[in-house]
Amino acid sequence: MEALRQMILSQGKGIGSDIVKVDMFLNHRIDTKLLFAMGEAWADEFRGEKPDLVLTVEASGIAMAVAAAHALGDIPVVFAKKSNTAVLSQETVQAGVYSFTHKTQNTIRIERKYLPEGSRVLIIDDFLADGQAVEGMMNLCQQQKAEVIGVGIAVEKGFQEGGTKLREAGIHLKSLAIVDGIENGEIILRPEDD
Amino acid sequence: MEALRQMILSQGKGIGSDIVKVDMFLNHRIDTKLLFAMGEAWADEFRGEKPDLVLTVEASGIAMAVAAAHALGDIPVVFAKKSNTAVLSQETVQAGVYSFTHKTQNTIRIERKYLPEGSRVLIIDDFLADGQAVEGMMNLCQQQKAEVIGVGIAVEKGFQEGGTKLREAGIHLKSLAIVDGIENGEIILRPEDD
Repeated sequence: MEALRQMILSQGKGIGSDIVKVDMFLNHRIDTKLLFAMGEAWADEFRGEKPDLVLTVEASGIAMAVAAAHALGDIPVVFAKKSNTAVLSQETVQAGVYSFTHKTQNTIRIERKYLPEGSRVLIIDDFLADGQAVEGMMNLCQQQKAEVIGVGIAVEKGFQEGGTKLREAGIHLKSLAIVDGIENGEIILRPEDD
Repeated sequence: MEALRQMILSQGKGIGSDIVKVDMFLNHRIDTKLLFAMGEAWADEFRGEKPDLVLTVEASGIAMAVAAAHALGDIPVVFAKKSNTAVLSQETVQAGVYSFTHKTQNTIRIERKYLPEGSRVLIIDDFLADGQAVEGMMNLCQQQKAEVIGVGIAVEKGFQEGGTKLREAGIHLKSLAIVDGIENGEIILRPEDD
């Protein structure tokens, strides 16, 4: 998506070999105009799959999920909650998510009634790196017998394996920008294929 | 705001004497149509104050801040990050927030450059109870010499002191619904004054 790509190139920062800092427009300060244009881009990609709800995980995925849900005709958003501890409850479903960045194991959970059996789910998140967060959300959907109709990502780190794994598994994945690497602080974007 | 009031009465749950559970439409599952109507209501209230940005705190305030910012012409959103530890840095400003609910002291922080001196700030949050979170955000603004032009809240707990404190301090506060109490599981809403 051209507007996001231009913003990454003009304002994003590459740090070391693998950190893509976009908190000036995406996940600390939010450029609201860009955000809603991103929502439209995801909606254009997934509208035909007729999603019933958008699923994300707190905190930085929420804004993007809301923008996508708005563009899809104000369908509901559900955000999984993060916690450090597993809490067993009949009313909630949960999945483990390992963070390679922070070297921590987290649990994400959701109240079962908000992810009904048979619902068609669009997963939205800000980053796709090793794919742990998306796989955790797919795990929640699987436990609830909900169908993941697609995954919309803002920034995919093309040099980590999450995107490849999802595509090989036949998941409909749309990353609005793909970073292929960082060289001397410069973010290298993969050319758009469409 | 009538639509939110009706949703609270039809779907909200009162628990004990002071817990107002609205996670079926506001802060776990989000009713996106209601969310954007709430954004319009805050925008109508605060448009004349010409806010430059919307400030909130992660996680559940983010959706509401995005809706308000969109209705105000896609002005930027900045969300303060929560952490358990104080981290001293020249680049960030932080404030302590005590949670009466969880009996914990948290720190909220923001990168200074995202809250510029002189900016006109609309604070948005989902709940106002004792006012600690809003006061923490006002503290961040004060440290940055940014001006708080108003505070927009979804659900104010009228039986706790946050709203009274803010009004007595002359803050322009707009709570879209005010809960005056919970009686036998029933949520008692204050009649609308406009």
